[in-house]
Amino acid sequence: MSDHERIEAAVEAAVVRLTEQGCPPRLAEAMRHAVLGRGHRLRPRLLLAVCRAVRGEATDLAVTTATALELLHCASLVHDDLPCFDDAPVRRGAPSVHRAHGEAVAVLAGDALIIGAFELIGEAAAMGTGVGRLVALLGRAAGAPGGTAAGQGWEGESDARARSATASKDTSLFEFAAMAGALAGGADPEPWRELGRRIGLAYSHARDLGREPRGPAAGPGAVPTRGSGPGPDADLAALIRSAIDAVPACEGEDALRGFVAQVLESLSGV
Amino acid sequence: MSDHERIEAAVEAAVVRLTEQGCPPRLAEAMRHAVLGRGHRLRPRLLLAVCRAVRGEATDLAVTTATALELLHCASLVHDDLPCFDDAPVRRGAPSVHRAHGEAVAVLAGDALIIGAFELIGEAAAMGTGVGRLVALLGRAAGAPGGTAAGQGWEGESDARARSATASKDTSLFEFAAMAGALAGGADPEPWRELGRRIGLAYSHARDLGREPRGPAAGPGAVPTRGSGPGPDADLAALIRSAIDAVPACEGEDALRGFVAQVLESLSGV
Repeated sequence: MSDHERIEAAVEAAVVRLTEQGCPPRLAEAMRHAVLGRGHRLRPRLLLAVCRAVRGEATDLAVTTATALELLHCASLVHDDLPCFDDAPVRRGAPSVHRAHGEAVAVLAGDALIIGAFELIGEAAAMGTGVGRLVALLGRAAGAPGGTAAGQGWEGESDARARSATASKDTSLFEFAAMAGALAGGADPEPWRELGRRIGLAYSHARDLGREPRGPAAGPGAVPTRGSGPGPDADLAALIRSAIDAVPACEGEDALRGFVAQVLESLSGV
Repeated sequence: MSDHERIEAAVEAAVVRLTEQGCPPRLAEAMRHAVLGRGHRLRPRLLLAVCRAVRGEATDLAVTTATALELLHCASLVHDDLPCFDDAPVRRGAPSVHRAHGEAVAVLAGDALIIGAFELIGEAAAMGTGVGRLVALLGRAAGAPGGTAAGQGWEGESDARARSATASKDTSLFEFAAMAGALAGGADPEPWRELGRRIGLAYSHARDLGREPRGPAAGPGAVPTRGSGPGPDADLAALIRSAIDAVPACEGEDALRGFVAQVLESLSGV
């Protein structure tokens, strides 16, 4: 089973549990809509790849943490799409959650997915040590003063700091992915932050160019799903090299460099 | 220092940390507005009272968990007040967060407070064991399928189950308060669920009658801050007796019964 398939199965199992008996039907439907069947699962795949690089395998704790990360990421998309922010009609080729299920249900679906993400990690305490630290790390990556919610908040500020802070909105969950992968594999997470940050910067730059990652089944050099042009972008190529260079020394560093290159080069369309 | 003062200080310290350097100014202001200087802190006070009853003292882990609970409760009020739900203009005698700071900032403030609540507990791992279990318990109490978010979701459903589920919206954080107080004091949380549930039912019934708890400084028998009538309500009195009777056997059970009686009898206006 590929990492992508493993994540997909774990995400689906988590959503089933969070929406099982007792859940209001419309909320359950919105949570499924927000999470299932779409998304490239880049952040959780990075988490598993880092865990394997430091530990030789993706541990159960890593899979659970990767699942939590994806739930949290999907929640942030649901809230960012709300009318008071982007009022996005479409997300990943389907109606946004609030267009499909209403604004109130979308707010609650985001809340329940955020909460469910932490709950998942909390329940993993039996899988290994470090659960408290994973929870704290995810909180810092996702919340205030420096995480995803704060980055989104800066988009509503006129201050000049807004530009750089908005970049951190794109990088903080990638930083968490790299650090949590190390932690779930028993390694010190701090040396892994920079790798996550650089991957996030490359991803963010590619998205600004209108590129999206190819699906996990596509081979290297696949055509981007939508592109602003056929050629590689010099800045993006430099960001990708910088990310590959940031892989810390570890047992599986070569395989991890290959993973980072493969994922990011699919963004450049070369 | 009273429990109320201890909670107030801990809540303020937590909000300072979540809104310090790097936080967008409007988001920081909204988070402070949502949490500080108001609220009776009933749920966190219950948590500390239960911890003291089983352990003889309110542990640092109990204070941290109580703080997290209050952040989460305040977050749920911010989101429940949004235009897509109640569109409440006023909360606790002041403008609601979205009226004062805008809808987008209110959504983010709620998100950041939810996330910050879990982060606080995660960081408390050094204070004692059980942090993973506390995180998981809080997730179940606050999220889906059976927590506060789900209870709010039922309010938008026409289904007949909505009425009873809405009651669970009022009780689930009280259940968490009682269970987490026991857990943070080193005791089995499960026998404490029913106490929290019954306190939540009494509180919910009193609120439906238009009663609010008196501040912690007021003595027994203080006049309710707003009341629908001067006399006690028979159903409320029965719910209060039922809650007092639900205190499990423990070293500090008499003092805890006194706390439950004092807090709830202030609701009845007798």
